[in-house]
Amino acid sequence: MWCQSCKEEYEEEDAGTCKECYEEASETEEELKREIDDLRSRLLFLRLPSPTLDSACIAHSDLLLHAIPASSSSPSSAGAGDSDAARPDTPAVPAHRVILASRSPVFRAMLENEMEESRSGIIKIYDVSYDVLRSFVHYMYTGEALLDEQMASDLLVLAEKYEVKHLKAYCEKFITSKVNNDNAIAHYAFAHRHSAKQLLEASLSVLMDNMSTLADREEYKELVEKDPRLVVEIYEAYLNRQVNTAAGKDTDCSCRK
Amino acid sequence: MWCQSCKEEYEEEDAGTCKECYEEASETEEELKREIDDLRSRLLFLRLPSPTLDSACIAHSDLLLHAIPASSSSPSSAGAGDSDAARPDTPAVPAHRVILASRSPVFRAMLENEMEESRSGIIKIYDVSYDVLRSFVHYMYTGEALLDEQMASDLLVLAEKYEVKHLKAYCEKFITSKVNNDNAIAHYAFAHRHSAKQLLEASLSVLMDNMSTLADREEYKELVEKDPRLVVEIYEAYLNRQVNTAAGKDTDCSCRK
Repeated sequence: MWCQSCKEEYEEEDAGTCKECYEEASETEEELKREIDDLRSRLLFLRLPSPTLDSACIAHSDLLLHAIPASSSSPSSAGAGDSDAARPDTPAVPAHRVILASRSPVFRAMLENEMEESRSGIIKIYDVSYDVLRSFVHYMYTGEALLDEQMASDLLVLAEKYEVKHLKAYCEKFITSKVNNDNAIAHYAFAHRHSAKQLLEASLSVLMDNMSTLADREEYKELVEKDPRLVVEIYEAYLNRQVNTAAGKDTDCSCRK
Repeated sequence: MWCQSCKEEYEEEDAGTCKECYEEASETEEELKREIDDLRSRLLFLRLPSPTLDSACIAHSDLLLHAIPASSSSPSSAGAGDSDAARPDTPAVPAHRVILASRSPVFRAMLENEMEESRSGIIKIYDVSYDVLRSFVHYMYTGEALLDEQMASDLLVLAEKYEVKHLKAYCEKFITSKVNNDNAIAHYAFAHRHSAKQLLEASLSVLMDNMSTLADREEYKELVEKDPRLVVEIYEAYLNRQVNTAAGKDTDCSCRK
């Protein structure tokens, strides 16, 4: 027989679909591609020019956001934090009430309830560097962010604080794709702190695959010191998996009997 | 052989794909569906609450749009136009500078160049009913509109005037899907007036398929009266098609010789 798709000959045991199903599948693929084109064009329409890039957009802005870096920055972000703290002239990030209020229920409440921020049009965003705030605002307009692991973690924290679910999921997905044995403990603890379920499961899975070396790691010892309950949860999950695997094997055996 | 997709048996002449291509196609379909989910979720994030529906959104608005219906409305929209004209208390439609300026280069220029509209925050939209203006503003925030043929035509005109390309294409696609022998002359003339190429081709094609009854139609006589050049173009296109079809036949014959 001849394959209608790759045009090569194949044997009976390598048969895929009949002609009718092949044609249906081709049509479905075309339809899906048309839908993707349509969605992309709607996205381009709905995407707004970011006030972090577009000066014309700034002209209509009615808010100024100020990044106030944490005085006690975490070791990983100490550099950025300190340099911001040392620059009291860090520029404010312009934005629009209608955009922030529509993307975040926290901003919405703040701007609707005649709070100080609403009256002055100035919002202080604490514990965040200027660069992270800029990326955060950029995302509110475009639904896009340029991520590395540090930026994704910082944005996830901010997204959680201001309840921007889409950004939190976007960052979590990115971090999850970067989980490996070297960073699994740190990501596991981070996921716990910020209720990031997908990241929690991914890092826990990597930890369980490498249980024999877990206790040797420096981060493990730190975690036992700081938050021993999280360590207990790793052992509980591991034991649970062992029990389930054993039960699975028993079922297999009884089937074979 | 057995089809992997519908699980039914088929003969050799009904073979579709080989197994490898079937598996590849299934993977592609899954990938496309994941991409669609991802795009839909980004769309939901970027879609803004419409100020025509969401009262909280109105709170931050910095523009008011007033519909000024045409005094000499076209017959098809006379009803709506008259009723609007008779109601001087037609409410204004609230909006935001940042949104209108980002969707339309015309609004952008108007609002950036310190024109009267920019100073007062009041924009008069001429030759349009309140309902059409409301749908127009709704689309600027959501990328969505509830269309019938009249609304699609009215919105297309407004989209052309304010250079909102995405809305113009959206309306044109809708109207094109409604072209039939009864409305082809009207749509053909409309497409000409508003440089709607896709609609022009679709209506011209329907007209050429029904040339024998064309000259009997009332709309045809009106068009000859109002804009005879457009009628000439129909005949030219028809003749051109006939010549091409004949040339195609000749080529077929010479091939067979």
